[in-house]
Amino acid sequence: MADKMDYASAGVDIDLEGSAVASLISSLGKSVRKPGTPGAPVDLPGGFGGLIEFGDHLLALATDGVGSKLQIAALLNQWSGVGIDCMAMNVNDLLCVGAEPIAFVDYVAVPKPDPEVHAALGASLAEACRLARVTLAGGETASLPGIVTELDLSGTALGFLKKGNAITGENLAEGDVLIGLPSSGIHSNGYSLVRRIMAHSGMDYTDIAPFDCNSATREIARFPGQSSQVSLGEIFLNPTRIYCNPVVDLINHAQSDKSYFSIQDIRAICHITGGGLSNLLRLHDQLGWEISDPLPPHPEFTWLASTGDVETWEMYRTFNMGCGMIIAVSQEHAEDIHAWLSAEMLGAKIIGRVVDNNRKVVHVPLGIEYSHY
Amino acid sequence: MADKMDYASAGVDIDLEGSAVASLISSLGKSVRKPGTPGAPVDLPGGFGGLIEFGDHLLALATDGVGSKLQIAALLNQWSGVGIDCMAMNVNDLLCVGAEPIAFVDYVAVPKPDPEVHAALGASLAEACRLARVTLAGGETASLPGIVTELDLSGTALGFLKKGNAITGENLAEGDVLIGLPSSGIHSNGYSLVRRIMAHSGMDYTDIAPFDCNSATREIARFPGQSSQVSLGEIFLNPTRIYCNPVVDLINHAQSDKSYFSIQDIRAICHITGGGLSNLLRLHDQLGWEISDPLPPHPEFTWLASTGDVETWEMYRTFNMGCGMIIAVSQEHAEDIHAWLSAEMLGAKIIGRVVDNNRKVVHVPLGIEYSHY
Repeated sequence: MADKMDYASAGVDIDLEGSAVASLISSLGKSVRKPGTPGAPVDLPGGFGGLIEFGDHLLALATDGVGSKLQIAALLNQWSGVGIDCMAMNVNDLLCVGAEPIAFVDYVAVPKPDPEVHAALGASLAEACRLARVTLAGGETASLPGIVTELDLSGTALGFLKKGNAITGENLAEGDVLIGLPSSGIHSNGYSLVRRIMAHSGMDYTDIAPFDCNSATREIARFPGQSSQVSLGEIFLNPTRIYCNPVVDLINHAQSDKSYFSIQDIRAICHITGGGLSNLLRLHDQLGWEISDPLPPHPEFTWLASTGDVETWEMYRTFNMGCGMIIAVSQEHAEDIHAWLSAEMLGAKIIGRVVDNNRKVVHVPLGIEYSHY
Repeated sequence: MADKMDYASAGVDIDLEGSAVASLISSLGKSVRKPGTPGAPVDLPGGFGGLIEFGDHLLALATDGVGSKLQIAALLNQWSGVGIDCMAMNVNDLLCVGAEPIAFVDYVAVPKPDPEVHAALGASLAEACRLARVTLAGGETASLPGIVTELDLSGTALGFLKKGNAITGENLAEGDVLIGLPSSGIHSNGYSLVRRIMAHSGMDYTDIAPFDCNSATREIARFPGQSSQVSLGEIFLNPTRIYCNPVVDLINHAQSDKSYFSIQDIRAICHITGGGLSNLLRLHDQLGWEISDPLPPHPEFTWLASTGDVETWEMYRTFNMGCGMIIAVSQEHAEDIHAWLSAEMLGAKIIGRVVDNNRKVVHVPLGIEYSHY
């Protein structure tokens, strides 16, 4: 194609979104809830938000939606994964601060309610609750024919942690080791670009994928009644991985007497979302990140890049490229923690280390770097 | 007009919505979180949902959106009240179980972010947090041009209460006294019908209201730069009342040594939302409700009924008709509690009592009744 594709040309203006959110935040004042009382806001190093005091604990809220991945689900009338996507986007964010997710509520806006779609959403949310080990504590379905033209799904997750046990990146140090956890596919970010590339390709979502979608560290959730060959729609709708297992277990294990390593050895956790590798830059003001031995990208990323003629640099700041979560751990216990994680999740891998490079993310094999989120 | 208007003809199919939600719920299984652990679901008498265990406390989540009132806000580009509406719909629900709201997160879906609109939303949410006395613990803005054509705003509120102090209606008894708290106007329900009546009336939202909108128990929040005369748009966008003050204070006072009455004297709390008076039927399996001395409806309700030729029965099951919250209290301490509430909120009034009438709501002066939600 004539123009190379990127995320902005696919219709998402990240700067405009950022400036809108900044406008909203600048209008907010200080919380009326006083320090030491339930609900008082907690500011942690690293700028994590969403935490409030609650006695000896902190509570954390995360809210997010599935986004334009839903448009592919609507096109194919396949809803079995989107509840998992919605859960994942929220609980994976809670994990990053060391919170254990315990409850979830969903919000569905539709032009007109459809009992069949809602039954599928319910089944998907039930599976998501099982995977994330949370209680579905409510939900709302709003009929808004004047506002939405298709189904929108978002949700809010609640988590908790002991005061003093937050994982903030505060103790991050040069030489800390990065462990990457494999993604299950595209997860729930970058779908404006996916859809644009699909439109350009001339292919349908029901077409058999023109590449071998096998990947050692994930399975594709099949639609009911499909042939043995996997369609592009199945690949693109593969549910986002929920990392509660192994991350909650890792955190709890680190706090137990049986553990060789402690919670202090887990320095920072990063959920790789819309900014791709540049998400790492949120975790520290000065230190940087060197990815020397990355997880392999799933085949769909390679296909998207070549079909859309997308620059590698753009791919790695839009998609997770095979790695959905990165855990920075102390050098001393990196092997222990890697071994522990590997036993719980196939494909967990040491991918690099924390470096003192003035806050850059460097992907060594590809020679690309990021210095702005 | 030829046909009388009702909520269904205004485009909202409550049965379809109910059946969609029932489909979703029937797909859900049991929570994986075991009784006695954080996040385990708590079933209370009266069927209240959304509560989970957390040590000596229960945590409660409520999630809801502003709905089609947003379409009037968009038409007039007036966003200063909708954050308060969003907060109110959620925290008022938490109050009904006796929970004190402590934190809130917002979810905004837009076709394209607009920093000016977001600044207004931020100011509105900040004011809402002050009124509800909660911390804004996060939020999400999603750009979804393929899914939403106008701004959608929803949110989730988190509250807590001591185990054993939930207000469930379990101890409700014949003779209990109903105290009504005045609404500030239409609140956030029934707007499909409001918009249909407006379309039928031939009037514009910017027109001066053709009635005296003064009402003893509320003020109309004015748009900036308006004349002294109040427009229909200002009346219809008047923010939903947040009842944290006085209800949280009442609950806390009832638990203090200084109080003449106890938490057991507060038998049930009902947020009057989309079902109008029929909301009361949710609170008990057998007992009924006699409203003998109701709060006066605000003038806009009268105007809507006459302009839309809406049956009185339909009005009282669609709108709050001047009464946004009803608190059922013991006969013994009804006067104490009424006096306490009156000191905190102008217009709090004893409006009726609990009766043993096989689960009906009876509005005595108007001779109307409801036996189904």
